[in-house]
Amino acid sequence: VSVVQDSVNISGQSNTNTLKVPECRLAEDLGNLWETTRFTDCSFCVGGQEFKAHKSVLAARSPVFNAMFEHEMEESKRNRVEINDVDPEVFKEMMRFIYTGKAPNLEKMADNLLAAADKYALERLKVMCEEALCSNLSVENVADILILADLHSAEQLKAQAIDFINVLRQLGCKDGKNWNSNQATDIMETAGWKSMIHSHPHLVAEAFRALASAQCPQFGIPRKRLKQS
Amino acid sequence: VSVVQDSVNISGQSNTNTLKVPECRLAEDLGNLWETTRFTDCSFCVGGQEFKAHKSVLAARSPVFNAMFEHEMEESKRNRVEINDVDPEVFKEMMRFIYTGKAPNLEKMADNLLAAADKYALERLKVMCEEALCSNLSVENVADILILADLHSAEQLKAQAIDFINVLRQLGCKDGKNWNSNQATDIMETAGWKSMIHSHPHLVAEAFRALASAQCPQFGIPRKRLKQS
Repeated sequence: VSVVQDSVNISGQSNTNTLKVPECRLAEDLGNLWETTRFTDCSFCVGGQEFKAHKSVLAARSPVFNAMFEHEMEESKRNRVEINDVDPEVFKEMMRFIYTGKAPNLEKMADNLLAAADKYALERLKVMCEEALCSNLSVENVADILILADLHSAEQLKAQAIDFINVLRQLGCKDGKNWNSNQATDIMETAGWKSMIHSHPHLVAEAFRALASAQCPQFGIPRKRLKQS
Repeated sequence: VSVVQDSVNISGQSNTNTLKVPECRLAEDLGNLWETTRFTDCSFCVGGQEFKAHKSVLAARSPVFNAMFEHEMEESKRNRVEINDVDPEVFKEMMRFIYTGKAPNLEKMADNLLAAADKYALERLKVMCEEALCSNLSVENVADILILADLHSAEQLKAQAIDFINVLRQLGCKDGKNWNSNQATDIMETAGWKSMIHSHPHLVAEAFRALASAQCPQFGIPRKRLKQS
């Protein structure tokens, strides 16, 4: 016979609620493992800096590292990997994400970290970078961000960058005299946009297609956006 | 110039909110690493069953495994550990906790898992087991649970078990004729309690001390509990 229910009623609180369960330390423990380099079995040379790591953790987290270590590649035999296209600071941040699921310095290096996340197939880290870049979109950087997103198949960021251009353009329709019309034109006049026309004409075409297919009601704001506001 | 703020106002929702960030997969990825036994570097023989594991992950999560593998012990040299005092199913559940922070089958084996968690210094798992045992306290098992809690220094469970006995005892004060008074007496008549008097007299003394120092107002329920209800 269990009398827990009675005890709960009388004391006014559940027995189970009174126990203090410590927080989950999985991410913290693995973060310490990365920091202390205990039991490491592989090393990386990144821009002249050495990093020690654990093949098991890297393979568990990244399909690219898994393939690298599982097959009889040069890296697998020597347990030493040379990386020349990633900055050491970016590599460290990527490793922190691999071991802990977190990237505390992401904001500082979102563009380069996006490239690294794409290279090592770290989907969540990639979208975290897309999110950071998205919240910093500006007239000045939107063309460069569009090129970056296209290069690394960052589809959500690409859609947001095109959306950003088109919203500005449509605001411009509303009133030829207000500041927004200047901003819409400003994008087309940035060095980034002008260079993109030559280097990535398909992106200009994509932005144009999105603009043409967007609804353009009386005030230049798409109907679905008006409904949301 | 950033125009994100304007875009946010007009669209009625933040750009950053529209990105779908995948869930953190750290626990899932490490759970798969345990299941697939890729890149394992040590093995355990538990009750005749073989298990392969990763020294780095075990050492990161358990101070006991860390000491076992870090020092030049027999286990460290051979990378093979024999365990005879843990059931294979309990060992598997403990490993699942080590790799993922979760123990989905905990309820079925909370007593033995508590012993294993105590042995390998897994504080969070230990309290998770205490919590499960706490919510199943009964007249019949409270003496055994008290002995288990004492043996494995499960202080929260021990306090709850003593509390459980005393609340029943105090309910008994309220009305000599109601069922609770029988339950309070029932505990003293279980085989577990009678055996505990001989095997662990200090626990009877502790329960008695707690009872004596508890407030016993008119209706036998401590004042602080009355206030809470």
